[in-house]
Amino acid sequence: MKKYIKDLVKKARQASYKLAKLDSERKNAILYQMADALLANKEAILKENAKDIKAAAKNKLSQSFIDRLTLNDKRIHEMSASLKEVAGLTDPIGKPIKEYTRPNGLNIKKVRSPIGVILVIYEARPNVTSDCIGLLFKSSNIAILRGGKDSISSNKIIGKVLTEAVKNSGIDFSPFFIVDNPDHKAVDLLLKENEFIDLVIPRGGEALIRKVVDNSTIPVIKHYKGVCHIFIDSSVDVEKALRICVNAKVERPSVCNAVEKILVHKDAAKYFLPLLKNELDKYKVKIKGDSKTCKILKGIACAKEEDWFAEYLDLIVTIKVVEDIDEAISHINFYGSHHTDSILTKNVDNAKRFTKEVDSACCFVNISTRFSDGYEFGLGAEIGISTDKLHARGPMGLEELTTYKWVVTGDGQIRE
Amino acid sequence: MKKYIKDLVKKARQASYKLAKLDSERKNAILYQMADALLANKEAILKENAKDIKAAAKNKLSQSFIDRLTLNDKRIHEMSASLKEVAGLTDPIGKPIKEYTRPNGLNIKKVRSPIGVILVIYEARPNVTSDCIGLLFKSSNIAILRGGKDSISSNKIIGKVLTEAVKNSGIDFSPFFIVDNPDHKAVDLLLKENEFIDLVIPRGGEALIRKVVDNSTIPVIKHYKGVCHIFIDSSVDVEKALRICVNAKVERPSVCNAVEKILVHKDAAKYFLPLLKNELDKYKVKIKGDSKTCKILKGIACAKEEDWFAEYLDLIVTIKVVEDIDEAISHINFYGSHHTDSILTKNVDNAKRFTKEVDSACCFVNISTRFSDGYEFGLGAEIGISTDKLHARGPMGLEELTTYKWVVTGDGQIRE
Repeated sequence: MKKYIKDLVKKARQASYKLAKLDSERKNAILYQMADALLANKEAILKENAKDIKAAAKNKLSQSFIDRLTLNDKRIHEMSASLKEVAGLTDPIGKPIKEYTRPNGLNIKKVRSPIGVILVIYEARPNVTSDCIGLLFKSSNIAILRGGKDSISSNKIIGKVLTEAVKNSGIDFSPFFIVDNPDHKAVDLLLKENEFIDLVIPRGGEALIRKVVDNSTIPVIKHYKGVCHIFIDSSVDVEKALRICVNAKVERPSVCNAVEKILVHKDAAKYFLPLLKNELDKYKVKIKGDSKTCKILKGIACAKEEDWFAEYLDLIVTIKVVEDIDEAISHINFYGSHHTDSILTKNVDNAKRFTKEVDSACCFVNISTRFSDGYEFGLGAEIGISTDKLHARGPMGLEELTTYKWVVTGDGQIRE
Repeated sequence: MKKYIKDLVKKARQASYKLAKLDSERKNAILYQMADALLANKEAILKENAKDIKAAAKNKLSQSFIDRLTLNDKRIHEMSASLKEVAGLTDPIGKPIKEYTRPNGLNIKKVRSPIGVILVIYEARPNVTSDCIGLLFKSSNIAILRGGKDSISSNKIIGKVLTEAVKNSGIDFSPFFIVDNPDHKAVDLLLKENEFIDLVIPRGGEALIRKVVDNSTIPVIKHYKGVCHIFIDSSVDVEKALRICVNAKVERPSVCNAVEKILVHKDAAKYFLPLLKNELDKYKVKIKGDSKTCKILKGIACAKEEDWFAEYLDLIVTIKVVEDIDEAISHINFYGSHHTDSILTKNVDNAKRFTKEVDSACCFVNISTRFSDGYEFGLGAEIGISTDKLHARGPMGLEELTTYKWVVTGDGQIRE
């Protein structure tokens, strides 16, 4: 196993130097060939996927797990379309971030460059395999992919089909590596290969992410969870605020940018809370409240300490009445997950304070938390939403999959 | 010890929220007060520093170690001047990196923000204490500083003097924390506090850095070593190339951006190598060569495999004759430290290939490697030079000590 991993990462590093030479046109043509290959091999992919589904049913995995695992005609078309969409995005590689000339004549350029080799660790969805291959290839990074053991047949066939497509395009190296050895040790060994792997992106539940962070000597960019807040300030457009709260909670409660907590300024609480409950009741949202909220809204459940940290991903929301914006900001910074938080206010100064002092990737003013998304930001496809502060924060598109280098050109200058 | 560390990091996190509120004017005024306090307390600082020097002599530490440890009138004036200089630099916090409006009316701003709490681990130089405090304070980051045990009295007094200065300015929190408990466990415990510390910057030898990388669950930005290369292409301005090679090797051989390896294109080797040896001999530079170089330059030492990886930090250089630019690039990517590498050439296409394909923080054309430096790049003071690819690469100034957040403002928008 040790030799298998060491050979794999060395090959990946060598391949990264070859991939760095490909220009955008070449990369886009290959992405199109990969996209076509998925469609051309649909039957073979569905056949292998059926094996995973059968095994999952035998292993009594949950229906929602099997849903995520299942490919069908529509999903394979979406996977193919994603690869073509990525081909259409602007290539960040080689773009100058800044350029200037120093008094001694040195021309200094900070230029976007590939990170190198990126390990992605994920769980059940086989479409993640082709999505990651597309984004990493377009940003000139070599992908090492480790999917969940329950989707192994699907991942293998997707890898095989795309490898074939790459070979047919005349490339003499592999731009991605699928780690299909089911042994858990493979991950442990990979996480120590900091000389050959530049970045790890874990995509999955909290247990997986903690394991990666605790064991990796490679930099990790992660997304722990989305405990998103809305703060209703004392002066607020009530109608808009109600619409935003409902949208943020009910439009898609299972995703990380759905609102989980609503904080209401004490001066707005008495009139706003009954109106809010009235709206949320229409969608059967379960409300939990702090003691002050419970006094205003009779009959709701009482929030416990752990509720303030909880990511429900369900039609549940916890509401708290706060003294002022200071308490709202402190609460969000302490209990939140630094993902996305929104203030609803007519007060411009409070909006400024909120966006300056709330320590989150996305600080919103007068909009739904649901807008925290790469597509909504105009970044194109995203590989995830980072709740980290280093390198990438918030939605991660192609640019966030790059590093930079300093290219400095002169004409014989020496340092005195 | 566990409680001491937990209390410290919790206090640091709380302080980070307070520091985030200070505007540039206030921060600059405090930096000036700190600078003045160093001068006003010069005698006390020298007295404590003398204790460290005495202990170091008793412990038979090397003269160069004691040199780095020693403060004097001039060095304290430099420390004070550095703080004033940082006050004069542009504050990156709050500056938009980009701003645009989406079709649905959302105004999207990517805004520079403090990282939060940063742990710096360093060795003997006590001036690093005040330098780090200045840079981290200006970028609105809380500093946790862990200096070497041999400079503990110096670090304590510097911390005390600067704390006093901060208090006098009316700030009710500490923007920095000096970990003066000499127990090694303190570092081990700090490196696991990923909830309260956002970044670790180790500054020191390779052993220190490896230890931090292996044990930290917090993101690390590091500088392993500088194995810098110059590649002499087949078509080259000989006079300039000689001047650059000499400058890169002898101007200050003990620093990380000094050149350690010179690669020479086979078509230039015969005439260039004797000229180069002639120049390097004037400065008593010891030359080691590969077999081809040894054939041309009689009587030099023969390079061993480990020489190609070595950072000498001394008047030694290893020279290799290469077939072509491909061999030069492969050699640099394999043996180099991804710090700074320079091509000397008249061929524009080769310069482009070199800067695209060499996987280093700084890729130079026709200049000395010695220019790899925050001041030379016009970034102002630097906290170090990163050989990492994530977050910051190359010289790290104030901007590299920031993260960003997405501030998105609308007028009641919801997601359909």
